[in-house]
Amino acid sequence: MRVGVVGLGLLGGSVARRLAVRHDVVGYDADEQTRRAAAAAGLTLVGSVEEAGVGADVAIVATPLAAVATVLPVLSTSDCRVVTDVVSVKRPVLAAALAAGLAGRYIGGHPMAGTEHSGFAASDPALLDGAAWVLCLEHDTPIESWLAVAELLTSAGSPVVPCSAAAHDDAQARVSGLPHVLAEALVTVGGGGGPLAAVLAAGSFRDGTRVAGTRPELVAALCDGNPEALADVLDEALAALGEARTALAEGRSVLPLVTAGHAAHREFTRPLASVAERLDAAASTIRADLLALGAAGGVVDGVDGTVMHCRRPVTGRLVSPQPRTGKSPP
Amino acid sequence: MRVGVVGLGLLGGSVARRLAVRHDVVGYDADEQTRRAAAAAGLTLVGSVEEAGVGADVAIVATPLAAVATVLPVLSTSDCRVVTDVVSVKRPVLAAALAAGLAGRYIGGHPMAGTEHSGFAASDPALLDGAAWVLCLEHDTPIESWLAVAELLTSAGSPVVPCSAAAHDDAQARVSGLPHVLAEALVTVGGGGGPLAAVLAAGSFRDGTRVAGTRPELVAALCDGNPEALADVLDEALAALGEARTALAEGRSVLPLVTAGHAAHREFTRPLASVAERLDAAASTIRADLLALGAAGGVVDGVDGTVMHCRRPVTGRLVSPQPRTGKSPP
Repeated sequence: MRVGVVGLGLLGGSVARRLAVRHDVVGYDADEQTRRAAAAAGLTLVGSVEEAGVGADVAIVATPLAAVATVLPVLSTSDCRVVTDVVSVKRPVLAAALAAGLAGRYIGGHPMAGTEHSGFAASDPALLDGAAWVLCLEHDTPIESWLAVAELLTSAGSPVVPCSAAAHDDAQARVSGLPHVLAEALVTVGGGGGPLAAVLAAGSFRDGTRVAGTRPELVAALCDGNPEALADVLDEALAALGEARTALAEGRSVLPLVTAGHAAHREFTRPLASVAERLDAAASTIRADLLALGAAGGVVDGVDGTVMHCRRPVTGRLVSPQPRTGKSPP
Repeated sequence: MRVGVVGLGLLGGSVARRLAVRHDVVGYDADEQTRRAAAAAGLTLVGSVEEAGVGADVAIVATPLAAVATVLPVLSTSDCRVVTDVVSVKRPVLAAALAAGLAGRYIGGHPMAGTEHSGFAASDPALLDGAAWVLCLEHDTPIESWLAVAELLTSAGSPVVPCSAAAHDDAQARVSGLPHVLAEALVTVGGGGGPLAAVLAAGSFRDGTRVAGTRPELVAALCDGNPEALADVLDEALAALGEARTALAEGRSVLPLVTAGHAAHREFTRPLASVAERLDAAASTIRADLLALGAAGGVVDGVDGTVMHCRRPVTGRLVSPQPRTGKSPP
């Protein structure tokens, strides 16, 4: 396939270098120094966003969220077949894509990989090893556009998770937005302890604050772009922490919270058996089939014509047996 | 020196094995299977808490907090010179030591090392490599008792941090209690997202929840044993998180919290230059000198008679220039 990558930072650079092993990849970045570093690393560069889109089977937007509204209209005027992206929130990018006239040609994407570093210098094709890659499927997404991107990603070894932009953003608030906000709060409060606290800080503090080393604008974008879902999960976290605080103040134990956390941690870390299955892209139920696969924690590992090779965990929900009241289940 | 270690779990086992390289160490554990595993690993076992204390220059209590009130009175009746411990909160153990009649012979200790695993099988002398080891110094602690333990620990390569039990517990709430409680809340809220959230969970979630794999009773003990200080820092964290939640709900950015967190993270992770200095254990100001060293983030690296070889960071407070209102500064 011919692939155009716009934005060659940590993620865009890693994606471009990974896909270039098997595909015809061209890249563009607004920053000249980044373009030079990418060319020195062996990537083929083009001179503009538009050129990255021309003739592309898939154009991948890997810019910060703030630049998406500028880049998508340019790609919309190019003849590229499908546009996807790697931005960590999906509802705002979907809205920008529709506003840019990309209905039917835009498939939201999000590889679940990253580090606290940024920029092309930190890019590494191995960053994406084994990382799940969300590909959004809405009620009106053309299956053939979705398939084209899924084929590209699975050909490079990425398991693809089908879900809607809304379901992605709800889950992202829990497993990405929340840990980032908690890490920032932890390191800020820890810092209030001065040098003695700094000397005493060990593994629990180091691990819990690692992502606070991420560039502030990136963290703010991933939170600010998902305000409603993140406010909801912050309410859940505030309730749990407030209960722990009350227990301590009243001389009770925090054991209930800790026991619940330990059980949830065991569910998250236990190895899951999975069963292989095939889905037929030509089936009339394929959209619902794919969304059910993603909601069950399943992935698409390969696309072979209209046959999708999938894996589905043997067990269903890992932890919470019921979706929260008032929220649409993923 | 002759050293008796009571309790041979993760920390006690690691400490006993580390000290046994240079010293005459005997160990005891209430659990027969643990005693057998420790003997198989080459440690010299004795048959009771009392025997661990008999003739010891230093007896080290490495039991859970709940067992301390039982063990300390037994050691108090033995002829051991000094009793120390490795429990992660220091005010309750100090109170138990005074109640057990160990005034003048008890020096609170806490090595800043651990993993989410537990038990002798997980013990490892290397667990303590480079880890700071708090040794508590109160207004009435005999300097010679403190020196005896400091000499033992520094002889095994542990840098010793002098501070009061109260200062330790305040700092511990920030850099150990708080990250544990946040990890439990995070994994619990994350678990509410079901299998889709589990598939999407990547590095930030994994790091932020690692310590939730610790045995619940250990986490509860480290929190429940330090209720006042932990409730205070939970209030600080709740305020920061509540402000982030309000910002999101009102369409504002979380950038202020994130920027503060990023700056604090940089302070915590930047390499600190330090200057070597010597303190004289016979000086009349030695108690204040040692406490000032610990409050500045300094450590004692070695004890040679009455000469203490120390290191002090070149800069003062890392992050917060002022102690919090209403709290005694460390």
